[in-house]
Amino acid sequence: MLDLYEVKDATVVIIDVLRATSTIATAIFNGANCVVPVDSIEDCIKLGEQHNMITAGERDGHIAEGLKYGNTPFQYTPEFIGGKDLALTTTNGTRLLHMALAKGAGEIITGSFPNISAICNYLTDQKNNTILACAAWKNKVNIEDTLFAGAVVSRVKEVFQINCDSSHIAENLFEEAKGDLFDFMRINNASHYNRLMGYDLEADIRFCLSEDVSNVLPIYKEGRLIAW
Amino acid sequence: MLDLYEVKDATVVIIDVLRATSTIATAIFNGANCVVPVDSIEDCIKLGEQHNMITAGERDGHIAEGLKYGNTPFQYTPEFIGGKDLALTTTNGTRLLHMALAKGAGEIITGSFPNISAICNYLTDQKNNTILACAAWKNKVNIEDTLFAGAVVSRVKEVFQINCDSSHIAENLFEEAKGDLFDFMRINNASHYNRLMGYDLEADIRFCLSEDVSNVLPIYKEGRLIAW
Repeated sequence: MLDLYEVKDATVVIIDVLRATSTIATAIFNGANCVVPVDSIEDCIKLGEQHNMITAGERDGHIAEGLKYGNTPFQYTPEFIGGKDLALTTTNGTRLLHMALAKGAGEIITGSFPNISAICNYLTDQKNNTILACAAWKNKVNIEDTLFAGAVVSRVKEVFQINCDSSHIAENLFEEAKGDLFDFMRINNASHYNRLMGYDLEADIRFCLSEDVSNVLPIYKEGRLIAW
Repeated sequence: MLDLYEVKDATVVIIDVLRATSTIATAIFNGANCVVPVDSIEDCIKLGEQHNMITAGERDGHIAEGLKYGNTPFQYTPEFIGGKDLALTTTNGTRLLHMALAKGAGEIITGSFPNISAICNYLTDQKNNTILACAAWKNKVNIEDTLFAGAVVSRVKEVFQINCDSSHIAENLFEEAKGDLFDFMRINNASHYNRLMGYDLEADIRFCLSEDVSNVLPIYKEGRLIAW
């Protein structure tokens, strides 16, 4: 859907709440030098070998073959990730990021509930044209990314002019859900909720829906996400 | 977005609330023999000349050059449209219908608030795999089509298994809005609300948000929409 919007010179917020952008925020908040998002497992392995980076990524709920670590934010404690470089393979989020780059985005940041205040403060300070880009799942809209986009809209709308219906839809959804995001996901039978619960990852879901527990602003510079 | 879903053999409900599918329901409810949806003004003019059909369609809020009538449901009274064939040019809805055809949809029907009960009764009787296809506006999600999809979900969900997050998002939106759909559109600054209000078409909006005022089931057979 990103091709429907005027990306050029805009600030693009990449959103992949379960769990890529939550994990990115957490790794950087806990002291990672950088996170390099890559499409493929092969590229991730290569970065690990050539640049001595920590390699991480999952497929179908398991650490992908050839990589060392998974996609859970709990892995990335200060003791583990502090001072290290992380190569993280994700599918939807990374493809969206590369698309935003190709279309001339002015800057790219990554957003999730764990770093929502850092995102919103940055956006309201900069007042640049902004696109909230939900990674979704194989291009289908999902509830959690929509909730995050809605949470951002609800916080920044006094400063921005909102000019697409989907932002209003997202904000309404968030307003309805905000009392208990986890329970809202459960009641609404959210696809990722079911998928991750099936892998026994309730704690991951709860963490990824928690505001400001990893409150840092990851910004994309020269191929890597670093703290702003 | 239709290409993300398994259309083959499914029932596809084409939704273009403001105003194509509302007008189609109204014309057929009021006695039109058929409505032929066409992409272009040229094709519409041709149908008018070759088959003595009533030609209708708008561009930018005005009757398109070369056509005789516009896109307001109020035009299509029983006195005017009874026993006639209508060629209607629409952009988003017609493209979506042709896409559904090309992908092997089992059947195609058109939905709007004016014929919501006919749609829901048919769906719950047939119990076929169903896709609620929102025409939107130049591929961007809009509020009114999402509201209609949500209204359908809320009525049929006991009979169907819902398996995409967007259906749940739509249903939540409808539940929040249903007390006063028109006011919900206004408060949320819906893009089509603003566009049509700018053309002084409040009555059209209100009609298109009214349930069962043209309660018929248009079904696509051999190039034309007819009453089921």
